[in-house]
Amino acid sequence: MSISNTQATPSIQICRIMRPDDANIIGNVHGGTILKMIEEAGCIIGTRHCNTQTGDRCVAALARVERTDFLHPMFIGEVAHVSAEITYTSKHSVEVQVNVLSENIVTGAKKLTNKATLWYVPLSLQNVAKIIEVPPIEYSSLEQEEAGKKRYEAQKFERIETKERNGEVIMSVSLPEPYTVAYSQSSLIHLVGPSDCTLHGFVHGGVTMKLMDEVAGIVAARHCKTNIVTASVDAINFHRKIKKGCVITVSGRMTFTSNKSMEIEVFVDADPLVEAEKGKYRAVTAFFTYISLDKDNKPLAVPPLKLEGEEEQKRFEEGKARYLQNKAKRLADKERQQ
Amino acid sequence: MSISNTQATPSIQICRIMRPDDANIIGNVHGGTILKMIEEAGCIIGTRHCNTQTGDRCVAALARVERTDFLHPMFIGEVAHVSAEITYTSKHSVEVQVNVLSENIVTGAKKLTNKATLWYVPLSLQNVAKIIEVPPIEYSSLEQEEAGKKRYEAQKFERIETKERNGEVIMSVSLPEPYTVAYSQSSLIHLVGPSDCTLHGFVHGGVTMKLMDEVAGIVAARHCKTNIVTASVDAINFHRKIKKGCVITVSGRMTFTSNKSMEIEVFVDADPLVEAEKGKYRAVTAFFTYISLDKDNKPLAVPPLKLEGEEEQKRFEEGKARYLQNKAKRLADKERQQ
Amino acid sequence: MSISNTQATPSIQICRIMRPDDANIIGNVHGGTILKMIEEAGCIIGTRHCNTQTGDRCVAALARVERTDFLHPMFIGEVAHVSAEITYTSKHSVEVQVNVLSENIVTGAKKLTNKATLWYVPLSLQNVAKIIEVPPIEYSSLEQEEAGKKRYEAQKFERIETKERNGEVIMSVSLPEPYTVAYSQSSLIHLVGPSDCTLHGFVHGGVTMKLMDEVAGIVAARHCKTNIVTASVDAINFHRKIKKGCVITVSGRMTFTSNKSMEIEVFVDADPLVEAEKGKYRAVTAFFTYISLDKDNKPLAVPPLKLEGEEEQKRFEEGKARYLQNKAKRLADKERQQ
Repeated sequence: MSISNTQATPSIQICRIMRPDDANIIGNVHGGTILKMIEEAGCIIGTRHCNTQTGDRCVAALARVERTDFLHPMFIGEVAHVSAEITYTSKHSVEVQVNVLSENIVTGAKKLTNKATLWYVPLSLQNVAKIIEVPPIEYSSLEQEEAGKKRYEAQKFERIETKERNGEVIMSVSLPEPYTVAYSQSSLIHLVGPSDCTLHGFVHGGVTMKLMDEVAGIVAARHCKTNIVTASVDAINFHRKIKKGCVITVSGRMTFTSNKSMEIEVFVDADPLVEAEKGKYRAVTAFFTYISLDKDNKPLAVPPLKLEGEEEQKRFEEGKARYLQNKAKRLADKERQQ
Repeated sequence: MSISNTQATPSIQICRIMRPDDANIIGNVHGGTILKMIEEAGCIIGTRHCNTQTGDRCVAALARVERTDFLHPMFIGEVAHVSAEITYTSKHSVEVQVNVLSENIVTGAKKLTNKATLWYVPLSLQNVAKIIEVPPIEYSSLEQEEAGKKRYEAQKFERIETKERNGEVIMSVSLPEPYTVAYSQSSLIHLVGPSDCTLHGFVHGGVTMKLMDEVAGIVAARHCKTNIVTASVDAINFHRKIKKGCVITVSGRMTFTSNKSMEIEVFVDADPLVEAEKGKYRAVTAFFTYISLDKDNKPLAVPPLKLEGEEEQKRFEEGKARYLQNKAKRLADKERQQ
Repeated sequence: MSISNTQATPSIQICRIMRPDDANIIGNVHGGTILKMIEEAGCIIGTRHCNTQTGDRCVAALARVERTDFLHPMFIGEVAHVSAEITYTSKHSVEVQVNVLSENIVTGAKKLTNKATLWYVPLSLQNVAKIIEVPPIEYSSLEQEEAGKKRYEAQKFERIETKERNGEVIMSVSLPEPYTVAYSQSSLIHLVGPSDCTLHGFVHGGVTMKLMDEVAGIVAARHCKTNIVTASVDAINFHRKIKKGCVITVSGRMTFTSNKSMEIEVFVDADPLVEAEKGKYRAVTAFFTYISLDKDNKPLAVPPLKLEGEEEQKRFEEGKARYLQNKAKRLADKERQQ
């Protein structure tokens, strides 16, 4: 049933039940979930095929996906069947064609939801920069081979073309100078899914804190380009609840640096997308302190923060006050213990 | 150790092995992973305690976390032990104290890594806006109760105070008008973890595509505030590989709207944080088309995109050309099949 | 290729690349990951089959897993192929037989790693307390049907028997000595979230099994401080369903050691937090056998278990009996094959 097939027409089939986390709150499976399954099937079959010869072992790396249509929505509880087949090979690339069927295992209904074409390139495991040769497949007819070659030429042409098309990086007005606040400032958005939530349908506080730490860590790493770890978190207040289906924006900016620590202020804003009338609101704020570690987990010196403008200067002073206060408190605690 | 205990001093203990995805590339467990476990323990014990009485069933919602220090780094393969205990109850809130120990199950070494204090408020499952009363716990001494009361008063005061402290939303220069490109424009950052990667340590194409679809979906939902689904994805070219440990920024902006569809351009930029000399680079770009669905999964009309400036006008025209071309192609395919 | 198959011999195939999070730090895939995939295949095929008739729509709920051996370790980067087939149906239950193959897509090597037998019971989606009738399958011969009936009778008898076997909840008092039962005894707690559940809002059997394997693995690692892997799982009976929102406590203790293996008893207790009147209940119990491996994946000697008290002595003797019985059975199977 599709296991012994490194020969003839190499094919594979993957299937999986769609879970709440694969879908939006209405129950429609995310296109991204399906794209990810399609690529996994392609990667398996491509890697398997390119290792059917002697010589370097390799991994198939995705080079291109042709235009893909989503013909029907898929729903939670349905089984997605992804079947992939190698349909053409050039000297250095593999074409994989993939079909996706949705099966409602309760009613038995089946629908074709996607057809996709992917191009892979085999990279040597010994030397990632080396593209190895692809073993040829057998075609059932000369026409089939010719049609594949045409598709190959067409995509090659387009690939070169789009390499030229180059958009500017969105929103980056001008490149900020290293060690400034603007340089390391970061933000992420996260669509609140079912597994982020309590029985009530509100985000677990722990999920929010994890995202806050993630952003703070990225800010810290961007600033000092080393291995960084969380040293402490200031008191966090959860002002307002965040509901399932919201998009949350978690933003972080550096406010203060001491010799060996960085303070990052993190904001969480919630946007209840669908209930537009409610509008965006600030849900949580907190200060995270990070330190930079060397290979033996010893603290490293941190590059000082370059301040621009009064606002940043003021925030730095406030951060310094918090830093000194915590230091004093730690000292007092230590003395009391002795 | 801690199981039979909805009475006397309610306590609980959670433990879990730290996995590659819980840590950074050096192997240090993310502070956020630990914060999430701490909160899970607090939520369980708080919810359990507040349901030991008759009346409304409820869920404990996190209201505040006191300042937390990370005393030692934790590593992949260690077991994190999180033990939580209810240490004070006011009429409407529960104080939970949590200790985290790391255990190296191979050497047997144990270290205290965190101490945290969390405050929960029980919300009725029948009516989320209603805070129910908390059943009192028994204290071993009057001093203990008094100390708890002091902590309660102190945090209450600080909570009210920080509600006032309010930062502006970072980087939002001015609030953009609905239906403009700037209004729905979104971007997310993602730290590439081990489970995102192939044997080579490069991101699976499927992981990138899933994130691209996620951003495109948020852009579409922000624009039309309805249930939206992916209708198609234009050809995607993977220009450059993305390595484990990179931060990727995935940005999306709306380029075109027809009566019933939206085209969103998505950019993926990779930033190899630690290897700073390499700099940020554009790794992937693509166009996603989304449609908006009503309750019966029928397509809805989409609000037209409001264009600002020549650049947006130009991108709209290009999007329209792609739209018409695809429409013509679909029609031709249909006719050929008949 | 396994899609059109609610007929004749209903079968299905699932496959997936093993990722870092599926394995321990040495790279051995957790037995729990494999058990979870096995159950997913069983649930799909069982649900699909029981809905091939008119009447109530239903979901297949796991009732029992027969003793399962892990014949070879699986590694990160390999593809796990899980194929499942319905081999017997009684009036109210479905027997599914599952084979697991590991495929190294780089070398092409394939190995049979597991064979498992699962029993499902179809629960009505309209009324969870109602077990619906199972449509009969067609057997290729009368012998095949008779053999299935024997397996059905045997498991039914054992299911009733193990319902009686009941352990007290494990609790540890003071710091235990190395190699005693108390020394390695462990428990974890998990809040059941939406993505752990079926359409009914009950925990997937596979999710429970994965957690059981995780605890058993921690117990084994604490005992022998080496790289340990699942060797087999005794029959598992799912006495009672576990609902979304429950907290489950999974506890494990070592019961027996032979020269090269450890037997760990695992208990799953469910606590429906919010519906307190229902109280905690024992949902599942099972015995896991682990072995310890050196760097070349060869079995190592295991430190003998230090017994304290009559209770532990008695459990050790029972464990020894199971060990000898399984050994005899393996030998007999081998001889029969020759």
